[in-house]
Amino acid sequence: MKRYRIPQGIKVHLDKMDPDDTGDYKKTEQGKEQAKAITSELIGRLGELQERLYANGERSVLVVLQGMDTSGKDGTIKSVMSGVNPQGCRVASFKAPSDRERAHDFLWRVHYEAPQKGHIGIFNRSHYEDVLITRVHGWVSEKAIKQRFNQINEFEKLLYENGTTILKFFLHISKDEQKERLEERIRDPEKRWKFNEGDVEERKRWEDYMRAFEAVLGATSMVHAPWYVVPANRKWYRNLVVAETIVEAMKGLRLKRPPEPKGVDFSKLRIV
Amino acid sequence: MKRYRIPQGIKVHLDKMDPDDTGDYKKTEQGKEQAKAITSELIGRLGELQERLYANGERSVLVVLQGMDTSGKDGTIKSVMSGVNPQGCRVASFKAPSDRERAHDFLWRVHYEAPQKGHIGIFNRSHYEDVLITRVHGWVSEKAIKQRFNQINEFEKLLYENGTTILKFFLHISKDEQKERLEERIRDPEKRWKFNEGDVEERKRWEDYMRAFEAVLGATSMVHAPWYVVPANRKWYRNLVVAETIVEAMKGLRLKRPPEPKGVDFSKLRIV
Repeated sequence: MKRYRIPQGIKVHLDKMDPDDTGDYKKTEQGKEQAKAITSELIGRLGELQERLYANGERSVLVVLQGMDTSGKDGTIKSVMSGVNPQGCRVASFKAPSDRERAHDFLWRVHYEAPQKGHIGIFNRSHYEDVLITRVHGWVSEKAIKQRFNQINEFEKLLYENGTTILKFFLHISKDEQKERLEERIRDPEKRWKFNEGDVEERKRWEDYMRAFEAVLGATSMVHAPWYVVPANRKWYRNLVVAETIVEAMKGLRLKRPPEPKGVDFSKLRIV
Repeated sequence: MKRYRIPQGIKVHLDKMDPDDTGDYKKTEQGKEQAKAITSELIGRLGELQERLYANGERSVLVVLQGMDTSGKDGTIKSVMSGVNPQGCRVASFKAPSDRERAHDFLWRVHYEAPQKGHIGIFNRSHYEDVLITRVHGWVSEKAIKQRFNQINEFEKLLYENGTTILKFFLHISKDEQKERLEERIRDPEKRWKFNEGDVEERKRWEDYMRAFEAVLGATSMVHAPWYVVPANRKWYRNLVVAETIVEAMKGLRLKRPPEPKGVDFSKLRIV
């Protein structure tokens, strides 16, 4: 899955990255079933790796999910993370900040939700909203945006240097795919409650968002906190890419069984 | 599962409640397999109910788990809750309070972790530790314990009156079963890291703990926040009882599909 990783310091062109890509899998029922079978195995493996992460209690993992409306942030969490033990996994969803949150710097509420040792933390949206929606609407000056890129990089470095593995996913869908998904929400009465008129408004700024995402990906994909641009038009491939990337990163931690408690002579211990 | 529910205001005798009970299931491989199949269905149902709870965003569920060391609090969370979407489920584990927490009343840190609307909250240990371990060790006066029972009931009533369904489970194991589980942790190198010398010390106070639990169950099992005494010697039956109780309670909420957004004319809406 290295192919979707954005190297540090390059200029990103989202137009050149195909949201419809399915990598080594055919865009057929067969390809889809193959990918789903592998994803299912990966989800099982993720559960085991998380158990070890939790038992070990020394490292943590932070998964950041960003993408346009309907790009599948909620769906990815449901599909990829529903097998993990919720005791070691916390999801933080960042909505419009409250008055109290707005009265602090933009990283204040985010820092509070950083995963504790032993945990996987999932950010459904994140501090990146503060360099995306704010920029597209012109709520923040260009100078402040540049400062924030730097502040984000330093913040993520702090987490990294304290034992957090950071994985950031941009769920890349096409504008046509968003149209279909919004229309589905309108058509299907079971899905209408998800429909948000604001999404239609934001859609009008699609190109501005793409440019803002490109700037984010270029400025904040670091070796210690890389961005992955996930082809997300097909949910089954999106899930595979996200699951495999997390599993590979966690395998890379080479977590050992936690050590035995010190000072206990297990050979002499008797329970009465 | 009503049979395990403690009615409000009765005196509880744990000696008369069999931790080895398996209800309608035989204590055979066949009975175990039957129970596991049903539990697996219940876990699927729980996932669906939680999705509706989350979408609806008006109610919440609080599951409190208490029990002696090795009674299976962690195991219950892993087995029963690993199928739910972590986006709508938060587990709070209450360990010894920090200095800052200790500088507040005992419900302060607990209140903060109360589940938000749409969520299932799981308390792995809880405010009940403050009328159990503290009482057994004599850290708190008998007068304060009585006050706390009342404070707990009022606190839980506050949550209930604000839309939280409260389910409290005492995982009931026998002293012999605990012995076996502790010995297993000593014998199996894979499990030794879980071994805690403190557990052996607390085990010496088994009878005091049983009396403290009986007092808790008698004083705080309310119609709006009932206790269930779960026979927990057999993990498969414990999981079944907990899963079925949560599913039944959530079905009882009769959660409807969330309403369509107001002021949107879906028949005229076009996405461009």
